Amino acid sequence: MLRVVLIIIDGIGDEYIPELDGTPLEYASGRLHTLNRMAKEGICGIMHPVAPGVPPSSDIGHLSIFGYDIEKEYPGRGYFEALGAGLSLSKNEIAFRVNLATVREENGYLIVTDRRAGRISGEDAAALYQALNKALHEEGIPARVVHTIEHRGVLVLRGDDLLGAVTDTDPHETGTPILAAEPWRELSEDYFEKARKTAEIINEITMVSYKILSVMDINASRMARGLPPANVILIRGGGMAKDIVSFMERWGFKPAFIAAGALYKGIARALGMEEIHVTGATGTPDTNLDGKVDGCLRALDRGYDFVFLHIKGTDNLSHDKKPREKAKFLIRIDQALERLYGLEDSVIIVTGDHSTSSLRGRHIGLPVPLLIWSGKMRRDRVEVFNETACSSGGLGTFMGRDLMRIIMDMSDRSVETGTRPEGRPLQFHTER
Amino acid sequence: MLRVVLIIIDGIGDEYIPELDGTPLEYASGRLHTLNRMAKEGICGIMHPVAPGVPPSSDIGHLSIFGYDIEKEYPGRGYFEALGAGLSLSKNEIAFRVNLATVREENGYLIVTDRRAGRISGEDAAALYQALNKALHEEGIPARVVHTIEHRGVLVLRGDDLLGAVTDTDPHETGTPILAAEPWRELSEDYFEKARKTAEIINEITMVSYKILSVMDINASRMARGLPPANVILIRGGGMAKDIVSFMERWGFKPAFIAAGALYKGIARALGMEEIHVTGATGTPDTNLDGKVDGCLRALDRGYDFVFLHIKGTDNLSHDKKPREKAKFLIRIDQALERLYGLEDSVIIVTGDHSTSSLRGRHIGLPVPLLIWSGKMRRDRVEVFNETACSSGGLGTFMGRDLMRIIMDMSDRSVETGTRPEGRPLQFHTER
Repeated sequence: MLRVVLIIIDGIGDEYIPELDGTPLEYASGRLHTLNRMAKEGICGIMHPVAPGVPPSSDIGHLSIFGYDIEKEYPGRGYFEALGAGLSLSKNEIAFRVNLATVREENGYLIVTDRRAGRISGEDAAALYQALNKALHEEGIPARVVHTIEHRGVLVLRGDDLLGAVTDTDPHETGTPILAAEPWRELSEDYFEKARKTAEIINEITMVSYKILSVMDINASRMARGLPPANVILIRGGGMAKDIVSFMERWGFKPAFIAAGALYKGIARALGMEEIHVTGATGTPDTNLDGKVDGCLRALDRGYDFVFLHIKGTDNLSHDKKPREKAKFLIRIDQALERLYGLEDSVIIVTGDHSTSSLRGRHIGLPVPLLIWSGKMRRDRVEVFNETACSSGGLGTFMGRDLMRIIMDMSDRSVETGTRPEGRPLQFHTER
Repeated sequence: MLRVVLIIIDGIGDEYIPELDGTPLEYASGRLHTLNRMAKEGICGIMHPVAPGVPPSSDIGHLSIFGYDIEKEYPGRGYFEALGAGLSLSKNEIAFRVNLATVREENGYLIVTDRRAGRISGEDAAALYQALNKALHEEGIPARVVHTIEHRGVLVLRGDDLLGAVTDTDPHETGTPILAAEPWRELSEDYFEKARKTAEIINEITMVSYKILSVMDINASRMARGLPPANVILIRGGGMAKDIVSFMERWGFKPAFIAAGALYKGIARALGMEEIHVTGATGTPDTNLDGKVDGCLRALDRGYDFVFLHIKGTDNLSHDKKPREKAKFLIRIDQALERLYGLEDSVIIVTGDHSTSSLRGRHIGLPVPLLIWSGKMRRDRVEVFNETACSSGGLGTFMGRDLMRIIMDMSDRSVETGTRPEGRPLQFHTER
């Protein structure tokens, strides 16, 4: 049996960028020495993380790729975000993903001008989250916020009759107003009432956040420097704690992970993967790629036989519509991965959780390229690693939910259907 | 958001024709300037309209492509044929698709020698349907027939305890006898009895049609000219009126359609698409292709954001085993589509509802090629539009039921999974 390294390059796929005459990955192709070598010696394919034409959120893309049923086993994004922020939710708590964002007032509405407040980060972001926490406490709202990375954070509500099934206040585009949280329309009466109550609190918190954050000195200073103020929070993706069958129980691996973003940490923790800490891993394009690869090798040395290595920066650059920088970052990733090439007794998989368009700045439903390399396996004719080359790969087209079974097979763990060599050894008694 | 033009070239896919050293589409490839250009600048793939190896009927192929569940939402072909013929069915009516056909008597059976009576059309066909109607009335059978295009027509039965679940009298091949309509074996007792009664009427109508049509002067005249007589009707595809959720409700488009064949009109009308009339659209290879393209442009001008453009003649030529003429017709289609190339703010999709073999003269289960073009999207390496080139396209292989989600994504209508920006704008109250 072979060890497995699954490298998820977030938002790896893209669409045609006129100025690059290709996708960022295609544009970078000529300089992706390691990835091309692995594609050439391995087998490739294209994968719809969820279904053709469906742009997955990152958590749903990952959960599907890890072989979980997103209809039945998805706890809501907030749960993963909370776990990723190091929180554990009790039974009467709900978590939401929040963004620090920029709005301006117009005719009684708050028009979103930057969904990430210029990717505010560091001490400023932490201080704003802290100030909001204080205000929530003073207003007597049973809620707290926790800063994670950049503009991102987690909101936790506490209460006995709450429900995460409320619509997003984040309009997911700029130039339009912050939306009211509302209970999902499809809920039955009991659930609807809980969600209605929850939505009311969410909307109150939104108002409080604007009232408090918009008058903070940090924002005055940001504006003086020409930066967008982080004067509100956008709230989405309610989730509650949920028992999810562990990755080890489902697939039999002893898994470890390396990720910086809270969401990805949260998913891996929810599935019982062990964290490998890497200094300088940031979840942004300035992350410590070499450190991450070190961490991967360290995990294998320590006896983990499945390592999930997550690289986030590609997605950020797509959301920020920076295709050329995405291509450059891909080249840096390729260079860092060189030390994984040739890894003995191992299978390396490189793919993404979804495509993100650097033109449209959002997730799109096009498939992602995928390569599987190991010293021994069937090869195909793909010679470079990108979206179009992989589409004529030997693995053809498949869905994210199929990937783990492919990995089980490629790492010599699959069992022929219908065969069940599961019993204990039969004890043999010689009669004399 | 982009507008959508979905062009369905009926029976577009085919199989290898020795005399063409390829499929008709491959044979025509060198001369398909517009389609090749769109393939080159767009993204391609291959689609199984229903499932791999399943040759769909045209109605099921279309319904699946439009994103409907053919297990749950298919009302039976007769309903579409009736709508297409301009009829509306009341609750106690069942409709069937009928063909004028040619049979000869042999040992007490009616052997089918031409399932379409030489594609009889025009006044002759109309007169035969008329004569049959008169006979049905005189025999006191509660049924009527309506002529649509060429040999095709619709049979409507009226009665309180009828059911369309009866087998076809059409043997779907020549050289074999007309079959008795029989109740579907799998029906429960109640339904079986209704279907048994219906089948009895169908068989009686078949007999009446042969008795009446075989002695018509029109047929004597046809035979004198060496044409096959239209001396019987073949009956199949029972269906009743059914409420189907509209295309607008399901996908949010304001849809229009251009089609000549009754079945396609019927499907589009059942889904609530608005008809764009085109003079000279015939549903045969002599159709007014330029007029159809005009109609498409007119529909877009009028504010429809989804245009379904159906071209039928390719399928006819395959059924008639005329691969060379199919290739020529494809070239004419390509020329007509030139005016759609470059359409602004639009996505153009070209594909088919199924493959039809010009060797075997029937639908086959091979996938259909598909291209999606718009000014902006991920490109792949496909440079020509045909079955084999599209099989290495960037969309890979997918099912008909996936197409609408792909179209939603390509036209900027998809929403990231897990995100629900559905609420009303949050009203902000400034206190002064």
